Amino acid sequence: MERKKRENPVNYTLNFIAMFDNTFSLARFLPIIGWLKTYRRQDLADDVFAGVITAILLVPQGIAYAILAGLPPQLGLYASILPPIMYALFGTSRTLSVGPVSIAAIMIASALTAPAVAELGNPIQSALVLSLESGIIMLLMAVLRMGGLVNFISHPVLTGFTSGAAILIIGSQISQTLGLKSPTCGVDMACYSNYLQGFNGPTLLISLSALAVLLLFSQLLPALLKKIDVKPAIITAVSKCGPLLTVVLATVAVSLLGQKIAVVGIVPSGFPELTVNALTDSLSERGKLLLPYAGFIALIAYVESVAIAKVTANLRGEKITPNQELIGLGAANIAAALSGGMPVAGGFSRTMVNFSAGARTQMAMLIAAVLLAIAVMYCSPWFANIPKAALAVIILVAITPLVKFKNILHTWAYDRGDGIAELVTLLGVLILGIEEGIMLGIMFTIASHLRKASHPHIAVVGRVPATEHFRNIKRHHVETWNHLLLIRIDESLTFANINYIEDFLATELKHQPNTKHIVLIFTSVSDIDTTALEALESLNQALQTAGKTLHIAEAKGPVLDKLHKTDFLQQLTGQVFFRTEDAVKQLG
Amino acid sequence: MERKKRENPVNYTLNFIAMFDNTFSLARFLPIIGWLKTYRRQDLADDVFAGVITAILLVPQGIAYAILAGLPPQLGLYASILPPIMYALFGTSRTLSVGPVSIAAIMIASALTAPAVAELGNPIQSALVLSLESGIIMLLMAVLRMGGLVNFISHPVLTGFTSGAAILIIGSQISQTLGLKSPTCGVDMACYSNYLQGFNGPTLLISLSALAVLLLFSQLLPALLKKIDVKPAIITAVSKCGPLLTVVLATVAVSLLGQKIAVVGIVPSGFPELTVNALTDSLSERGKLLLPYAGFIALIAYVESVAIAKVTANLRGEKITPNQELIGLGAANIAAALSGGMPVAGGFSRTMVNFSAGARTQMAMLIAAVLLAIAVMYCSPWFANIPKAALAVIILVAITPLVKFKNILHTWAYDRGDGIAELVTLLGVLILGIEEGIMLGIMFTIASHLRKASHPHIAVVGRVPATEHFRNIKRHHVETWNHLLLIRIDESLTFANINYIEDFLATELKHQPNTKHIVLIFTSVSDIDTTALEALESLNQALQTAGKTLHIAEAKGPVLDKLHKTDFLQQLTGQVFFRTEDAVKQLG
Repeated sequence: MERKKRENPVNYTLNFIAMFDNTFSLARFLPIIGWLKTYRRQDLADDVFAGVITAILLVPQGIAYAILAGLPPQLGLYASILPPIMYALFGTSRTLSVGPVSIAAIMIASALTAPAVAELGNPIQSALVLSLESGIIMLLMAVLRMGGLVNFISHPVLTGFTSGAAILIIGSQISQTLGLKSPTCGVDMACYSNYLQGFNGPTLLISLSALAVLLLFSQLLPALLKKIDVKPAIITAVSKCGPLLTVVLATVAVSLLGQKIAVVGIVPSGFPELTVNALTDSLSERGKLLLPYAGFIALIAYVESVAIAKVTANLRGEKITPNQELIGLGAANIAAALSGGMPVAGGFSRTMVNFSAGARTQMAMLIAAVLLAIAVMYCSPWFANIPKAALAVIILVAITPLVKFKNILHTWAYDRGDGIAELVTLLGVLILGIEEGIMLGIMFTIASHLRKASHPHIAVVGRVPATEHFRNIKRHHVETWNHLLLIRIDESLTFANINYIEDFLATELKHQPNTKHIVLIFTSVSDIDTTALEALESLNQALQTAGKTLHIAEAKGPVLDKLHKTDFLQQLTGQVFFRTEDAVKQLG
Repeated sequence: MERKKRENPVNYTLNFIAMFDNTFSLARFLPIIGWLKTYRRQDLADDVFAGVITAILLVPQGIAYAILAGLPPQLGLYASILPPIMYALFGTSRTLSVGPVSIAAIMIASALTAPAVAELGNPIQSALVLSLESGIIMLLMAVLRMGGLVNFISHPVLTGFTSGAAILIIGSQISQTLGLKSPTCGVDMACYSNYLQGFNGPTLLISLSALAVLLLFSQLLPALLKKIDVKPAIITAVSKCGPLLTVVLATVAVSLLGQKIAVVGIVPSGFPELTVNALTDSLSERGKLLLPYAGFIALIAYVESVAIAKVTANLRGEKITPNQELIGLGAANIAAALSGGMPVAGGFSRTMVNFSAGARTQMAMLIAAVLLAIAVMYCSPWFANIPKAALAVIILVAITPLVKFKNILHTWAYDRGDGIAELVTLLGVLILGIEEGIMLGIMFTIASHLRKASHPHIAVVGRVPATEHFRNIKRHHVETWNHLLLIRIDESLTFANINYIEDFLATELKHQPNTKHIVLIFTSVSDIDTTALEALESLNQALQTAGKTLHIAEAKGPVLDKLHKTDFLQQLTGQVFFRTEDAVKQLG
């Protein structure tokens, strides 16, 4: 029943209408109601603590990811206020931290620097259109119940993509730490020597100092505090202050040094104004050009967010509803567009910080959002002198763990095909580009899925002596019979695999020309499609010509129901047995 | 082993090299050697008879299909000489009649009338390039062992496509029977009234007479002869002369009437010259433009030919080797290009005529080819006055049975998804065009395959009392146990379906919150990919958090081998049981 429901397009509409009928559950649509009902004082204490820690991380991340995307810093800050509030209302994860993320940032950069898009100018407007479009795409996917189709980004492809994107980010940030702009030299070596002359000693000094402070806070200090028995909560709080302190110290250093070091620049003060500019502009040429990029951003933002949300939910025995996640993230992105923010998603490092700081619910993120709003209103002037090099170091430290070369080796060792998919996606991202890399990975996954589907598992089986169990003759010592061939097909019969099955049978019959009876064991056959049915009909006919009979055993109810609609069972030269044992008793 | 072999791209090359090493079997590469060795005198008598009958059909069909493709008649005649000889050498079907076919003809017409192609002029040269390119594509597919990938045109899609193409052909031919040119009016009504004024009474007369003669020979006469006990062979011979006689009578009638009726026009006399013009031109702009069309022609020519070849092979207990068919058809198309012919494939009606006339081997087609060569050398002047209307009627009679509306209803009744695929492809061809229709059908098939793959069959099972059999609790009266949930998964665990499986389990656990032990029965699980393994790991962890244990039963050898490479089995909270019965004894 479930399958039929999903195949019928009319039902999509019915499902959509059902959302508004009288059986409609408000708590399902607004998951926040679910946890607010049982919210206790201790939860609030935990959430306030986690919210403050996450907010401290959000300020430098918001600015850094906006710059990584090639946008003014405020687009990252604004994206950290309204979007997480919307996600808190509609999303199902209790600990996911929604806001600017590095992978989406590099995808935005890729879209904004595409020649046709760059030609239009006004990158801010393009970023808002991307937010709006990716939000709308997510909501559309939710309405069409397409959450499941995103299954078709397998974990190896996702890991390969993330590693590739992380390497691209690292490449772009290393230039920043040296005071260099990203090179655009191609193969012109003379240009590179010119380019390297832009190297700036003081910037490198800032970068190295920033790295030292970060590592001190993330590695050394926690180990030290642990030794002297400080409370875990305080260790967490201290270690997560690293990025903010790095930024503060670096900013002070730049002011004292007075050197020419690239800084963030003026950040407009005050609260972002709500605007519908993006709405109208997405109907223009700009909207059309950006649509495919928005599609990829929506896809990756959704898949990565759900993957992260699942990790923390599993640790606490909570549950993520994929389709509701599409609504939560879609609403967050539309909110980003309307409040002047860049596209958002669930961030891995921030979510883990939020979770390990003890966040119970999305209340933590609501508190963080309020703190961010206060920061944007009152602290903007202080942001102007943050050196870009310090932000680059923060990104580098956050992003490096996402490059997982070892994972490719592990995947390769476990499943060759998955290993190749991971490597192909990684190389695709590095060589062809971000969007091309994902496309390549997805297409590769589908192609290898189809290839596997066309080579189903089939076994010639015999009986385990003195039992009613039948097992593969190649793996077990089993009884077999002359003139009788028992073949177990381990998949549904479809257009994709029926040719392979025919070939398998032909080969077996060639090796055992004395076979009189062929029994197809349908234990695992859940469906027989039209192509396969036609093939079975001509197989039956061909075997009849050769003086052999075809039988079926262990067919499931639904399969027999379907076959009874045709005259195949009347044409069948042999019989239909309930159990393989019955076939052996009669034919063996 | 088989699967691994196919997944490793290096092995393609090895396979290719193996074709030339010392284990190389000449008879496998040249199937003609196989049947020539055992060829008897009686076979020759049968083949001569069938060859003559098929040649009689080939003359009008060759001319008609060339005109249908928008080409001069000789391209159809030339395509009936050298190509079937090449197929006879390399192909594996003994009765397939390779030459010009209607579906390929309309695809050629679609390519030649595409604006960019039409602009280049010289349609003959374009047709030769199409022959060459589709031949090379087929040979490439053979080298890459891609015969199996063509499985992904399911029968419903193929039937939908054929019906749609046949309707397009009927539309184009009906104009011809009325003496009208194909309309190019679009929505301009005034243009249509002008267009209809081109209506030509004498042409309609010729058409109706031709139809009468054809029906007389194909329906009435055989029935009559059968009544007076004429030998079946003679009945076949007489009934198959209809088309040729129709053409002869119509040609005579046109000469006598002396009216202005559209005729074939001058057909160059003599044998076609071998030329390599197509070779050089396929590297030019023309070759590049035509490549996608050639790809579709190769695909459809191959799939339709194999489908037809299988029908006749099954009736005689012979065997078709798909990869060798690619070589045979590829060689035939390259021969067409070099000898001035249009692209070729196996024709349905001609093959059935050849088969029912008693053809034993491809000798019949060799004889037909020789007869065609003689006809081209000595009878060309007679072809000039054949009225196009008579040819149109021959095409109409041949093509009408290919429109299978009833088939859609049958398919729909048996399998809803297949019915939709068939209808979508048919409408795609009619509304969007030939190539777009196929693409739509293939994409629809793959998408619905993926959708099905993401909804695997899963059953909660219980024990059939007093046996060791476990069956679906929804379909059978079975024993179940408190605290114990037995779940049988009927497919391999992959990225595509693991989310669905997780959701299924979560729903079951919600309904049976007292469950302590979950046993996953892996009877039908042939593989667990990386994504599924990671999901199982976090499922195991999540269940542990909830105080439940996870067990596995009936896992196959290869699956356990693969799991032993990881630490999943150590992490597993429960056990691995050989038989479900063992799990029940211990946990039930």
